[in-house]
Amino acid sequence: MGTQHPLNTIGKPVAKVDGRELVTGKARFTADMKLPGMVYGYQARSGVPSAKLLAIDTEKARRSDGVLDVFTAEDIPGPNLIGILPPFDQPVMADKEIRYAGETIALVVGETREQAKQGARKISPSYQVLTPILTVDDALKENARKIHPQGNITFSKELIKGDARKGLEDADVVVTGTYETSFQEHAYLEPEAVCAVPHGDNRITIYASCQSPFHLRGHIANNLGVPATRVKVVQAYTGGSFGGKDDVAVEIGILAGTAALKLNRPVMISHEREESIKGSNVRHAARIEYTTGAKKDGTLTARVAKVYLDGGAYASESPFVTMKALIHAAGPYVVDNVSVEVTTVYTNKTYAGAFRGFGVPQVTFASESQMDELAKELGMDPLALREKNGLKAGDLTATSQSYDSSVGFLETVRAIRTVRDRFTVEKNDDRYVYGTGVASLLQGISNGAEGVDVVGASVQMSQDGSVLVGCGLTELGQGSRTVFAQIASEVLGCNMDRVVVRQVDTDSVHDSGPTVASRTTTVGGMAVKKAAEQVAGSLKKMASLMFKIDEEHIELKEGFAVLKQDTNASIPLSEVATAAYWTGFPLMNLAFSQAPPVDYDHDTHQGDIYLAYNFGTHLMKVQIDTYTGEVRVLHHAAAHDVGRVVNPLGVTGQIEGASLIGYGLAHLERIEYADGIIRNPNFADYAVPSIKDRLPTETILIEDPTPNGPFGAKGVGEPPVAGAAAAFANAVADATGHRFRNLPVTREDITSVFRKEA
Amino acid sequence: MGTQHPLNTIGKPVAKVDGRELVTGKARFTADMKLPGMVYGYQARSGVPSAKLLAIDTEKARRSDGVLDVFTAEDIPGPNLIGILPPFDQPVMADKEIRYAGETIALVVGETREQAKQGARKISPSYQVLTPILTVDDALKENARKIHPQGNITFSKELIKGDARKGLEDADVVVTGTYETSFQEHAYLEPEAVCAVPHGDNRITIYASCQSPFHLRGHIANNLGVPATRVKVVQAYTGGSFGGKDDVAVEIGILAGTAALKLNRPVMISHEREESIKGSNVRHAARIEYTTGAKKDGTLTARVAKVYLDGGAYASESPFVTMKALIHAAGPYVVDNVSVEVTTVYTNKTYAGAFRGFGVPQVTFASESQMDELAKELGMDPLALREKNGLKAGDLTATSQSYDSSVGFLETVRAIRTVRDRFTVEKNDDRYVYGTGVASLLQGISNGAEGVDVVGASVQMSQDGSVLVGCGLTELGQGSRTVFAQIASEVLGCNMDRVVVRQVDTDSVHDSGPTVASRTTTVGGMAVKKAAEQVAGSLKKMASLMFKIDEEHIELKEGFAVLKQDTNASIPLSEVATAAYWTGFPLMNLAFSQAPPVDYDHDTHQGDIYLAYNFGTHLMKVQIDTYTGEVRVLHHAAAHDVGRVVNPLGVTGQIEGASLIGYGLAHLERIEYADGIIRNPNFADYAVPSIKDRLPTETILIEDPTPNGPFGAKGVGEPPVAGAAAAFANAVADATGHRFRNLPVTREDITSVFRKEA
Repeated sequence: MGTQHPLNTIGKPVAKVDGRELVTGKARFTADMKLPGMVYGYQARSGVPSAKLLAIDTEKARRSDGVLDVFTAEDIPGPNLIGILPPFDQPVMADKEIRYAGETIALVVGETREQAKQGARKISPSYQVLTPILTVDDALKENARKIHPQGNITFSKELIKGDARKGLEDADVVVTGTYETSFQEHAYLEPEAVCAVPHGDNRITIYASCQSPFHLRGHIANNLGVPATRVKVVQAYTGGSFGGKDDVAVEIGILAGTAALKLNRPVMISHEREESIKGSNVRHAARIEYTTGAKKDGTLTARVAKVYLDGGAYASESPFVTMKALIHAAGPYVVDNVSVEVTTVYTNKTYAGAFRGFGVPQVTFASESQMDELAKELGMDPLALREKNGLKAGDLTATSQSYDSSVGFLETVRAIRTVRDRFTVEKNDDRYVYGTGVASLLQGISNGAEGVDVVGASVQMSQDGSVLVGCGLTELGQGSRTVFAQIASEVLGCNMDRVVVRQVDTDSVHDSGPTVASRTTTVGGMAVKKAAEQVAGSLKKMASLMFKIDEEHIELKEGFAVLKQDTNASIPLSEVATAAYWTGFPLMNLAFSQAPPVDYDHDTHQGDIYLAYNFGTHLMKVQIDTYTGEVRVLHHAAAHDVGRVVNPLGVTGQIEGASLIGYGLAHLERIEYADGIIRNPNFADYAVPSIKDRLPTETILIEDPTPNGPFGAKGVGEPPVAGAAAAFANAVADATGHRFRNLPVTREDITSVFRKEA
Repeated sequence: MGTQHPLNTIGKPVAKVDGRELVTGKARFTADMKLPGMVYGYQARSGVPSAKLLAIDTEKARRSDGVLDVFTAEDIPGPNLIGILPPFDQPVMADKEIRYAGETIALVVGETREQAKQGARKISPSYQVLTPILTVDDALKENARKIHPQGNITFSKELIKGDARKGLEDADVVVTGTYETSFQEHAYLEPEAVCAVPHGDNRITIYASCQSPFHLRGHIANNLGVPATRVKVVQAYTGGSFGGKDDVAVEIGILAGTAALKLNRPVMISHEREESIKGSNVRHAARIEYTTGAKKDGTLTARVAKVYLDGGAYASESPFVTMKALIHAAGPYVVDNVSVEVTTVYTNKTYAGAFRGFGVPQVTFASESQMDELAKELGMDPLALREKNGLKAGDLTATSQSYDSSVGFLETVRAIRTVRDRFTVEKNDDRYVYGTGVASLLQGISNGAEGVDVVGASVQMSQDGSVLVGCGLTELGQGSRTVFAQIASEVLGCNMDRVVVRQVDTDSVHDSGPTVASRTTTVGGMAVKKAAEQVAGSLKKMASLMFKIDEEHIELKEGFAVLKQDTNASIPLSEVATAAYWTGFPLMNLAFSQAPPVDYDHDTHQGDIYLAYNFGTHLMKVQIDTYTGEVRVLHHAAAHDVGRVVNPLGVTGQIEGASLIGYGLAHLERIEYADGIIRNPNFADYAVPSIKDRLPTETILIEDPTPNGPFGAKGVGEPPVAGAAAAFANAVADATGHRFRNLPVTREDITSVFRKEA
């Protein structure tokens, strides 16, 4: 870990460095931007889920009041194609075929947003309507119409470890079941927005509420037909993303950029909530056929899962979601025989893509339901079953990877047992029933074998000792700026208030790939640490000249270079920095940080894939009103092995927030389709958890440091989604005595059980 | 030099990369900026050159229509102090004392610029007027009033080499004379302008027409009382600077920043021409008492110069100007005995500071007048005298520095002789007289021993093979963006149109100090080269894996990685870059480049000071109308040793532009004072050379490469000023038979000679 001395900033609770401007409204979001000559874009969308697009009549729209121009697919200078990875199957605007209701067919640009919107209503497409394919089963039928030329299977992957058939034969007990989850909307507070500003120097700046500015740059440049370095993407304050501001930001970035270059005016596209829900990606709906075998003593002998993911109209980030579902389906357990097959399927619905958890919540719900069903079958305590099979350092994961350290899973189970032991058992009565559910999970940290894991960061100290940090990974509300500031502060021995973490832009750091996979603290933090260490090296070299003593005797602490032997001997960092500048020691460094290499077989899905896993166990205790179906969460405990806590307030916030999304997935949220059209594209009809639903979460932080994260830290942004969702389902099953295998388990579902019994 | 193979881009004539947007008006300058909520600042200035400032009544101004706020010295949050180097003697706004007419006493902010200006007129200061000190002689009088507490001598330095007294004693011929030059105005097309924009994240961005963004950042942060990293300075397109946009940009940057933070609105300050002339620094006026001794054969035995520089009210960059005058006074000659003393003096006039040439034009005028006077005395050809004494590799300069290479002085003399040999001798007639003058010069490249010579640059290649270059030194019209693009293109083997050189900002590169001392191509170019070489290294490593052959067999050329043995075997750089990204070879590098160390004694001013000198010889052939005094330059030849030509068009442009400034200094320009107040603060009364004055310049480029510049290149931005001014004076002397020892030599001066004779 390289930390022989106690840490000064790491591990201390600190307020978010950008918290004040956010809560006071001082932070300006993309849609707040106003520039001279700025015009507004509004997308015309298809009203049908599946059709041949024969023609688009734009004349009425062009004549509409205040409309400046109308753009259709043929106006995109480049290939009119987006997509994170092959097969690059998604047009920016539909050209020949409509594949989901809500797909963009034209962009109307007006002097005001309202004028653009009115114009967009006057776009008249001519369709040859096709029968939409709306279910996985229909898509997989023999002779089904092909949604894309290559067929209706987006991706299919299989993980094989040991011999699952034999493992099931060796089992004393086998449980099996089919589990389903629904499409889920990201529901960030700030809908998608971009502002494209053309400059006199033939460059264009895209200000965007976005997650992965380098993705935007590449796609926008390609579709504008200009070199990537003519495009600068600046990540504006981003009011939540959760995976949802990759694809759509790219799409509207290209649209705004195309219009801005043609009109030579700044172009704003800022979505309304309905556009955000209809036009942006969602969490994959899943159907999981799961079978688990075990010995009488609870030892797992085999786990077999067949997973179907509904990917909607386009591939988007399905490759990663497919992969994550595959890797995580067997859970945080030692299982010698595993067989997982994940198939992602095209349907004529809103495309599914990245969403906090990335396939893990779906399979964890199935896996952890199975564990509880198995425990019941075996007459075992659910926590004991998890403890018996839980991964330890040196054990092999489902991909047969083992870790020497930072496998704190069993500690999370034991911590949750301690919580449960505190509880008094509530007695059911005529109206209310009570239950407790637990669920365990693991979630891989970093892109690992799924992609390149490179991050750039820069750290600059000014002569006055103040510090500027930049990183290619983004702040999305998760607190990365605060974590980066803490890391720089720790390494440079300066106070937090001397550190500024600036906005991300694509000009100033190395292409850092996407801000995903809970890798920001871990991989991004390592880059910041590396850059800061270079600057710290200069400061120590300078201080060594000033003190006339070897560097090893000097430490940087609380704004001073201090002599270890005599802490009264100290020089302010501002003086050291000024001297270093004039002496010629570099005070700025651009780090290029890379995750350790992986060794992975993409055919069998065996090998070393992630630099670490986050492990967790959740517990929920619920009270259910059998009259109304209302579920009251009396207690929620979430224990996670986070390697090292950087900011306890931040970690707690991440766990609370992710758990609430898991709770929404498990209990409230479902995108309702009728004939392929979303029926609840608003927050009145789509039930997203509100502040009133905030869970009474008790956060338990286990620190089992990883050598691959800064000071040992591992990410925690995504894992709690899976834990909370699965624990909720198990708690409801415990309370009601009924195993619900479809999420969400709504109040209606619950009351229907009791009505049946009544 | 590291260039075994022929160069592809370096040395080729290329159009300025930013030329098109500049000539089409697409480039947006600072004053073109318009932002929502933007307000305008206008400075109230003192109308007297010297006074105790008793009070400032701001009430009427505050009540003036559209005025939002008024700021005086006490409203500056920080120390209200600027200055490049100690003694830091200049307030941002005058507080207790007025030291020149035009000094800022208050800032008025209004909704419009006109309202702010009207408000500024209503600022009522109460003065106790003092008798201004307006000449160097008055300032140096015993018992003179002290303009600053430390006295009226800003700086005084003395260079001693050998024994000058003995040298003069040994001389067969001694010439002596006193030479004077005037204050000169920078007269850039775009007057000073800044726009301060406060952000929600507690940072402030200063967009500025400026020369040295890191200077701005430091001073602005200090005076705003915030850490430097909370200030981001972006250099906007800058319509000329020539040294003039350091101090004033700092001053108005602080003013705009102070107002922006208080009002939380963007604040624009954009000067009118009169403000620019009255309120910004000028070139030091000089009086130089010069004596030169020589043997009969022309061998110089001693040169003795006593230089007085009028520095005006504040020190500004006088330390550097003092130093440069000191080092360069002896000229590009081998002289064993040199004594130079330079004294810079405070007066109650506009402060003098940086101006293209930095003290060298003044002393070169004196030195080269002396050389001609000596030649006349000796009956020698002026070029022969210069050739006899000219520096060669291995010779000692005035500071006793010697260079192994890149001393191409004698080649410039010989080249000019060849030009002269072409001429037919014109015969004087009743009205017209003809003459030819030459002048030689040297000018140190880099800050050298005068300061820190550190530059940061970044080079980033995108996966599509396009390249983004950033550097901490600025484009001021001199063509640095083009030079940087050429260097990156050369190193990376890509075409120029794939390279973008972006705007400079203080966030994204290492503090690079000021853009001065003709060091941009040399020191800045080395930084760009270094950064590009790192990226090229990644590309070669990747190509080596792709070709399965050692790196040494691969070169990057014309957009491809090419096998040297078989140039048909090539891979597009875009493919190499994409593969490199995914394989984990860094495609971006932030270079920190430093000039070689110096070894200099600041007491005797002996030692190694600059990494190289530019050497030059100019020739002017003039026709003079004895009736009107009109001087027609029939021919101008400028031969310079530039080490290596990067862009012949750029070098030619630099030589033409700098020569024209020298011509203005020698013939047209003089700031006229009456009672300490500038009488000609406009382009009607102040005669700046116009396009009609463009010289018929023949540029001769000598290439004697320096190991300390990229591909051997040395800067050429400043040297021709001195050459053209001195050659003009010598040509006029030759034509008229009268030695004018004061610059400018105006038409009036010339006709007065002939009137006297008539």
